[in-house]
Amino acid sequence: MNNRYCVIMSGGVGSRFWPFSRTDCPKQFLDFLGTGRSLIQMTYDRFVRLIPKENIFIASNEVYKDLILEQLPEIQEDRILLEPQRRNTAPCIAWAAYHIQAINPNANIVVAPSDHLILNETAFLSVIEQGFDFVSSRPALLTLGITPNRPETGYGYIQVGENGENGISTVKTFTEKPNAELAKVFVESGEFFWNAGIFLWNVQSIIKAIQRYLPEISSRFEEGIPVYNTDAEKDFIAHNFPACPNISIDFGVMEKASNVFMLQADFGWSDLGTWGSLYDRLAKDKEDNVVLKCKTLMYESKGNIVAVPRKLVVLNGLEDFIVAESDNVLLICKKEEEQRIRQFVTDAKMKFGDEFV
Amino acid sequence: MNNRYCVIMSGGVGSRFWPFSRTDCPKQFLDFLGTGRSLIQMTYDRFVRLIPKENIFIASNEVYKDLILEQLPEIQEDRILLEPQRRNTAPCIAWAAYHIQAINPNANIVVAPSDHLILNETAFLSVIEQGFDFVSSRPALLTLGITPNRPETGYGYIQVGENGENGISTVKTFTEKPNAELAKVFVESGEFFWNAGIFLWNVQSIIKAIQRYLPEISSRFEEGIPVYNTDAEKDFIAHNFPACPNISIDFGVMEKASNVFMLQADFGWSDLGTWGSLYDRLAKDKEDNVVLKCKTLMYESKGNIVAVPRKLVVLNGLEDFIVAESDNVLLICKKEEEQRIRQFVTDAKMKFGDEFV
Repeated sequence: MNNRYCVIMSGGVGSRFWPFSRTDCPKQFLDFLGTGRSLIQMTYDRFVRLIPKENIFIASNEVYKDLILEQLPEIQEDRILLEPQRRNTAPCIAWAAYHIQAINPNANIVVAPSDHLILNETAFLSVIEQGFDFVSSRPALLTLGITPNRPETGYGYIQVGENGENGISTVKTFTEKPNAELAKVFVESGEFFWNAGIFLWNVQSIIKAIQRYLPEISSRFEEGIPVYNTDAEKDFIAHNFPACPNISIDFGVMEKASNVFMLQADFGWSDLGTWGSLYDRLAKDKEDNVVLKCKTLMYESKGNIVAVPRKLVVLNGLEDFIVAESDNVLLICKKEEEQRIRQFVTDAKMKFGDEFV
Repeated sequence: MNNRYCVIMSGGVGSRFWPFSRTDCPKQFLDFLGTGRSLIQMTYDRFVRLIPKENIFIASNEVYKDLILEQLPEIQEDRILLEPQRRNTAPCIAWAAYHIQAINPNANIVVAPSDHLILNETAFLSVIEQGFDFVSSRPALLTLGITPNRPETGYGYIQVGENGENGISTVKTFTEKPNAELAKVFVESGEFFWNAGIFLWNVQSIIKAIQRYLPEISSRFEEGIPVYNTDAEKDFIAHNFPACPNISIDFGVMEKASNVFMLQADFGWSDLGTWGSLYDRLAKDKEDNVVLKCKTLMYESKGNIVAVPRKLVVLNGLEDFIVAESDNVLLICKKEEEQRIRQFVTDAKMKFGDEFV
């Protein structure tokens, strides 16, 4: 138990979920489903059942420090790794690995996003237990692959190779998001799984992999070995973190390493990456509308997702739209066009400054 | 001048303009166009240029007393005729006539709604002056007819007979709202004018007409002659007003009387009865959208009217809709279905009580 560590990554801005997700309070800090707990709080709640509280780290951006302290008062401030700039997941994971290695060189680490939805907690915990057992006994990089239930085009897929025991396989390829036709082929083949972005490894395994595949990152963090967990760490990071290349752990390590394995999982997972993925997950009324946190009167309206907290929303003749309001922004957008929301956010910032983003 | 009187009718609930118009603050009390003055204030502002302040009366429902006193502090409380129940325009006009007769039996009265838009104030004042001159010298019931600029199906029309001088004609018929085909014929004929619901008459003329065509109303108000402008008037009205039949002055008197004349007018009038009529009046952007009181980003969206005060509204793929939010209600409704808004209000009341209406 005491070798188990967790890194919850929560530095994202979640702009595809605008206007709910805002630069100063992105999606992971929101109580999206009205359960009373934000996504990051729910993520913490899950891991604290398996991992000692003092071994749980939050990796995030400096600007979210106060939000994290407020939402997770159980977390000590020295467990929050605050990145001075956004550099994607590889530098984040590298820092966390070197930092944890300095505390416990035998650490086994699970790395997970803070803003995903997991409906079956029992299944999740059992999978994480199994993953810890696997990576603590061999130099493997383990990723979780979700059994796909539909030809989703919004996720990356993992193609498995040889099947070993207990749902653990070798990995043939990591793929980018497929088009609809390809996604269908993927799902029907039975060889492809959704890439959930949840990883497990021993701290030595990941450091070795970074040294081999991302030496420009590992060489910087090697230099910091004398300062991790000291007062000098903050200054060291302020100087070195921004100099790291902006690169994901998938692209930088997982797609290249030969000791990558996938653990097949099925725990009601969604990355909640977009309004559409939220729509797909949630219960619908008889006209296929999803209603979040508001009252509605619907007339000849179907296939919509409506999230306008605390209001009455009356819809007439609207089909397959996102209707989402938060604070000072109302978005009405065709569901099929939701990938453009990021552009809308950029446009809003260009045109009106920071008031609405 | 001192024989000139005005009755501003402001008891309506304006439910077609929901959610802006609410039962406890209907349309006439709203600063609809963001000018800083509500529609009733603008109506008062116009008449006070022609009519002594103490001769301006507000006829409304008891529930709006505080709103009127707040918005029109110049009006003395005894100039507000508060109806204990809604009974349409005939009982309202009858009471005002008997009440004013008790003050000045030579009064000439203009009766006007409080919630119309009039863009050309100078033309309006000149028409009202002309109307006063006309009705002060003969026993005529005069109504204003607006020169139609389009085949509007949302208005009643007045068909004129013989043309007299200065744009004053006899009246052949009053019509209900026509269908599109008929409206086109009306406008092309040149004989039809929009019924603006603005009337002028000498107090004796209207009392005589009510006595003749609505004796069940006049007989009640005759009984009150000893009490008008005394402390006993309120009790008298509380007992007698609710017993009046619910009937409009158009149907009860104007369509039946033979001394009805129409004064042709053209002063940029709209009854602002619906979102669509507001849309028609206002300036549009290059995609034919009308935006009120908010900022917008539009993508492939046209023909919409958007009124979501103080917010940024982002539209993608929306055409010919009303998007209106006020307080705790957001309405998204096809423009062509706006006549159903009244039903939506009824449904909201049935389902959720008074919270949203």
